[in-house]
Amino acid sequence: MQYRSIIRILGLLIAIFSITMIPPALVAFGYKDGAGVPFILSFLLCLVMGFAIWYPNRANRSELKVRDGFLIVVLFWTVLGAVGAIPLLLTSNPDMGLADAFFEAFSGLTTTGATVLTGIETLPKAILYYRQQLQWLGGMGIIVLAVAILPLLGVGGMQLYRAETPGPVKDNKMTPRIADTAKHLWYIYLAITIACALAFHLAGMSVFDAICHAFSTVAIGGFSTYDASMGYFNSATINMICVIFLLISAVNFPLHFAAIRGKSVSTYFRDPEFKVFLGIQASLVLICFLVLLNTNVYQTGGEALNHAAFQAVSISTTAGFTTDGFSTWPLFLPILLIFSSFIGGCAGSTGGGMKVVRVLLLFLQGRRELNRLVHPRAVYAIKLGRRPVEDRIVEAVWGFFAAYAVVFVVIMLSLILTGMDNISAFTATAACLNNLGPGLGEVAAHFGSIPDAAKWLLIVAMVFGRLEIFTLLVLFTPAFWRD
Amino acid sequence: MQYRSIIRILGLLIAIFSITMIPPALVAFGYKDGAGVPFILSFLLCLVMGFAIWYPNRANRSELKVRDGFLIVVLFWTVLGAVGAIPLLLTSNPDMGLADAFFEAFSGLTTTGATVLTGIETLPKAILYYRQQLQWLGGMGIIVLAVAILPLLGVGGMQLYRAETPGPVKDNKMTPRIADTAKHLWYIYLAITIACALAFHLAGMSVFDAICHAFSTVAIGGFSTYDASMGYFNSATINMICVIFLLISAVNFPLHFAAIRGKSVSTYFRDPEFKVFLGIQASLVLICFLVLLNTNVYQTGGEALNHAAFQAVSISTTAGFTTDGFSTWPLFLPILLIFSSFIGGCAGSTGGGMKVVRVLLLFLQGRRELNRLVHPRAVYAIKLGRRPVEDRIVEAVWGFFAAYAVVFVVIMLSLILTGMDNISAFTATAACLNNLGPGLGEVAAHFGSIPDAAKWLLIVAMVFGRLEIFTLLVLFTPAFWRD
Ligand SMILES: [K+]
Ligand SMILES: [K+]
Repeated sequence: MQYRSIIRILGLLIAIFSITMIPPALVAFGYKDGAGVPFILSFLLCLVMGFAIWYPNRANRSELKVRDGFLIVVLFWTVLGAVGAIPLLLTSNPDMGLADAFFEAFSGLTTTGATVLTGIETLPKAILYYRQQLQWLGGMGIIVLAVAILPLLGVGGMQLYRAETPGPVKDNKMTPRIADTAKHLWYIYLAITIACALAFHLAGMSVFDAICHAFSTVAIGGFSTYDASMGYFNSATINMICVIFLLISAVNFPLHFAAIRGKSVSTYFRDPEFKVFLGIQASLVLICFLVLLNTNVYQTGGEALNHAAFQAVSISTTAGFTTDGFSTWPLFLPILLIFSSFIGGCAGSTGGGMKVVRVLLLFLQGRRELNRLVHPRAVYAIKLGRRPVEDRIVEAVWGFFAAYAVVFVVIMLSLILTGMDNISAFTATAACLNNLGPGLGEVAAHFGSIPDAAKWLLIVAMVFGRLEIFTLLVLFTPAFWRD
Repeated sequence: MQYRSIIRILGLLIAIFSITMIPPALVAFGYKDGAGVPFILSFLLCLVMGFAIWYPNRANRSELKVRDGFLIVVLFWTVLGAVGAIPLLLTSNPDMGLADAFFEAFSGLTTTGATVLTGIETLPKAILYYRQQLQWLGGMGIIVLAVAILPLLGVGGMQLYRAETPGPVKDNKMTPRIADTAKHLWYIYLAITIACALAFHLAGMSVFDAICHAFSTVAIGGFSTYDASMGYFNSATINMICVIFLLISAVNFPLHFAAIRGKSVSTYFRDPEFKVFLGIQASLVLICFLVLLNTNVYQTGGEALNHAAFQAVSISTTAGFTTDGFSTWPLFLPILLIFSSFIGGCAGSTGGGMKVVRVLLLFLQGRRELNRLVHPRAVYAIKLGRRPVEDRIVEAVWGFFAAYAVVFVVIMLSLILTGMDNISAFTATAACLNNLGPGLGEVAAHFGSIPDAAKWLLIVAMVFGRLEIFTLLVLFTPAFWRD
């Protein structure tokens, strides 16, 4: 392991991350909300800390191996999560303990969007802005992670995308290709964010709210500047804008890139994952709409359709925005949607869950097993569109699925040990492992009232989910640390 | 498909099954409980029905193919489940509707042990005996199914056992080998049952109770002749006898056969599945014991250990016997044990769940994926003990796992649609799909108060579980029915 090189990179990362404390500081001074000092302090602290870590190791530029990559990725998320909690610890409004501040920062950065805060609209604007920005930055990180890094590390079948990403591939030289891929995809990410903010503003949001909610929409994060989440605006137009941008953001970003470069919408419809994703979304919206109509939850069909579309897309893409009615819907729908969040967005998007392409591969494998029972001697290949998928990738996806299940059960049981009830423990685990946000029961509105031990467990769940289980799990194997 | 041959076999089966109505009729006359007539009627009805189905097709003895095997297996369980409901429909005490009678019969035959009845001890002895006998017969059926038939059909990786079972293997000629294997294993099954009944009787049960509970113990069924289940006897000795015989019955029966033939206990400890099974059981007992000690649920350590061992083994082997305290234990334990019932017994035993060997294979595959991440170029084989396992078998197990999850989610959501609450729906699905028996919430004590639609859904879950998902699922594919 190239420890000193890794530490050097970490130092750089923290120093760069310090810059992200400046916009909230500016917001504080603009709104004169008195929350500027914690951000200035955090900026200086991170800058100095980053420099102090980087300086002694600045000459260590050895080439990084795949194995170092795992450590860097895990440190990236955990260290930035911890550093991101600093301003929340320094500020006196809200007055947050260690567990709360870490929970909020990790929830932001992993785009989970679960919050321990209540009375959000009364908090200083700078804090509100900072939470949203954390999600937006987290979203950027996720795209690079999923598109450029995990395929190289070979986590959970993501090597599927290894050959498709542009640029030359050399297994052990990550840096140039990552930078190149990242640049293209970030431009797209930025463009979508600007378009989303404009649309929100035109639909009636203030400039501040529009930017803040564009951040958390495109990142599929789900943080809001109001306790009532999107329900605050009570606007069918805003709901629909949110749906559209969630759908866009839950699509594989390299697919956006390919469609833009080829100037062709048909690119999307040649992608099997995209088609399945749309099919899932349409089915969920339809089911919600029909059940809502049938149970007369809303006055008009239009209202039912609007809420069905908003809530189905918001939960199943793992955004986790809510309108007030959601947790009072007939129990079937919340449970259905929470199950659908296990599928989540497309691979290489900002969405959470297990990802559509993996679920598709599992389905294809299940169908293959059925076919093999009927024709035991025939040979069936698994194909995504016309492209055959190596068995090794399918195996990696299975491993991912099993590890997901094991991590889920262990965390859920641990939550029950901390004293949480069944349904809260179940949905809290799903909400954090899938990077979804809200649960049901005790955690339907916020995570503020659960025990501190449960908060720490859920932070671990968020990181497991965001790092696609294996990136973190591999660090717990002795083989990883042996030379 | 050899339809007429299949119908011929079915007729024979029903005619043979009619004989099983005679022992309960004898019990009725012995105890003069007035419940004899329904069993005599059922005997005649089944005999005539079986004969009427068999007679026109008696000459159709064409050789059966693997595909016919699926249909026969599914018909075997569904037809016998339906026929088994006849005496329950004919009798006036208990007075059961169609859904209740089917639920009870299927629950018996699949060794699930969930009941819709209350006030069990007030029912006629013949009915009580009949329920227990259904479980015992179901257990016999399961052993043949798992050991001789599913390996030939290649369901869920059970072809793993194809080479190990004694006798010559010819893919398309099932009959002689099944008969031979079945004979040996049934002798063992019978011997264990007799030993269990003797032990129960010596420990204080009446002869009737001892035979009845031996039936449901060795079948890992969980039916009892009392509402309070094993808790009625309130005896540490009886609990421990039950634990020992559950552990014996949850072991792969061909392994018992091999150990007996080789006259060597060490045979067991060369079997990887057996070792993992014991490890799981010991861990669960230990966890339950420690939590119970810690929360002072029982007065003495000995009492805590007794209840911990009894309840952990009863739930995790999927027997589902309870002592009265169980559903009032700290929530963590019931949830832990219900999760453990997804693992269940060893393959080729009367236990339910996904089976230890499958979970072991998934674990080995997960570990392989972790190793592959650290050493991407190394080749890792999956081995059970010293024996390498073909990738195809591992794939079949993955398919099984995924299908299990999908069936689980679909049935649970459907139950919620019928109006059941979360925890009841979740645990009822687990209890029936794993052929476990009791759940939590509304279905902790019995299944009598849930809607009829839910009962039918849970019957489907029991059959799915007992037929290892794929045997039933394959019948829903168009390819199966095409020629
Ligand atoms: K989210
Ligand atoms: K059972």
